[in-house]
Amino acid sequence: MKLLVAVVQDKDSNRLSNALVEANFQATKLASTGGFLKAGSTTFLIGVEDEQVDEVKKVIQENCKTREQLVAPVSPMGGNADSYVPYPVEVQVGGATVFQLNVEEFEKY
Amino acid sequence: MKLLVAVVQDKDSNRLSNALVEANFQATKLASTGGFLKAGSTTFLIGVEDEQVDEVKKVIQENCKTREQLVAPVSPMGGNADSYVPYPVEVQVGGATVFQLNVEEFEKY
Amino acid sequence: MKLLVAVVQDKDSNRLSNALVEANFQATKLASTGGFLKAGSTTFLIGVEDEQVDEVKKVIQENCKTREQLVAPVSPMGGNADSYVPYPVEVQVGGATVFQLNVEEFEKY
Ligand code: NI
Ligand code: NI
Ligand code: NI
Repeated sequence: MKLLVAVVQDKDSNRLSNALVEANFQATKLASTGGFLKAGSTTFLIGVEDEQVDEVKKVIQENCKTREQLVAPVSPMGGNADSYVPYPVEVQVGGATVFQLNVEEFEKY
Repeated sequence: MKLLVAVVQDKDSNRLSNALVEANFQATKLASTGGFLKAGSTTFLIGVEDEQVDEVKKVIQENCKTREQLVAPVSPMGGNADSYVPYPVEVQVGGATVFQLNVEEFEKY
Repeated sequence: MKLLVAVVQDKDSNRLSNALVEANFQATKLASTGGFLKAGSTTFLIGVEDEQVDEVKKVIQENCKTREQLVAPVSPMGGNADSYVPYPVEVQVGGATVFQLNVEEFEKY
């Protein structure tokens, strides 16, 4: 058995939770107060059988991977209107960091 | 040395904390925002010498294991009184999930 | 790669965060609700390449190690003025507990 420690952005946290439940994986969410990632983060502890590790990682990747997002332009407040670009801007969001640990023993009471 | 990661129900959390302190084990509690278990959960990190692993697990089991609890019947509010069963009902509470990880090195500063 | 789980006192938490960022190490902070240490604690998850483990531990030690702190005397409130010692008193603060875990696989998405 393996324990995956996955640090993801808060904005992807609920989506990942739902996807894990749907795929029948059990996870515990820990409130992170900082992170590998610049924005607020959530840490997932996911216990998984060896033969399902790849499947869980695929679920994490599909729901959290780094991608670009279009952000609407903000009109300049008292700024120089000449330098104002009225186009949406692409910013990078998401991303996940996953550590795979070996579980020596696993018990349920 | 081993690191036990134990996810338990919130309602058993204080009792487990006290039992660990009494048995002279050192633990850190992490606030979980979801869990392996349906109700709110707390995650314990417990560092323990190899020869004491069984003892710690026994403490966890004794204080957190799944058990049935009698719940007083709730009288029906605007429901069909014909289907109302005035007996206490047994519900399952508690339970713990424990992952045992190997600690390569342990330091105290 | 290794995952260091470091439990430190809340009062050293920000200093350690800043020192880790400065030294270019990536860490996630988890809110602990109890701890190995008597005061409030913060748990750091620090992913690190094998050859940098010693460096990270040095950063933790330098910023969190147990030390004595002078505390100003508090004048007795309605107490026996005869037993009042008007000297600063040394108390022990800080301290860190570090578990080193082996990371089998590490992924970033
Ligand atoms: Ni296994
Ligand atoms: Ni050992
Ligand atoms: Ni390695």
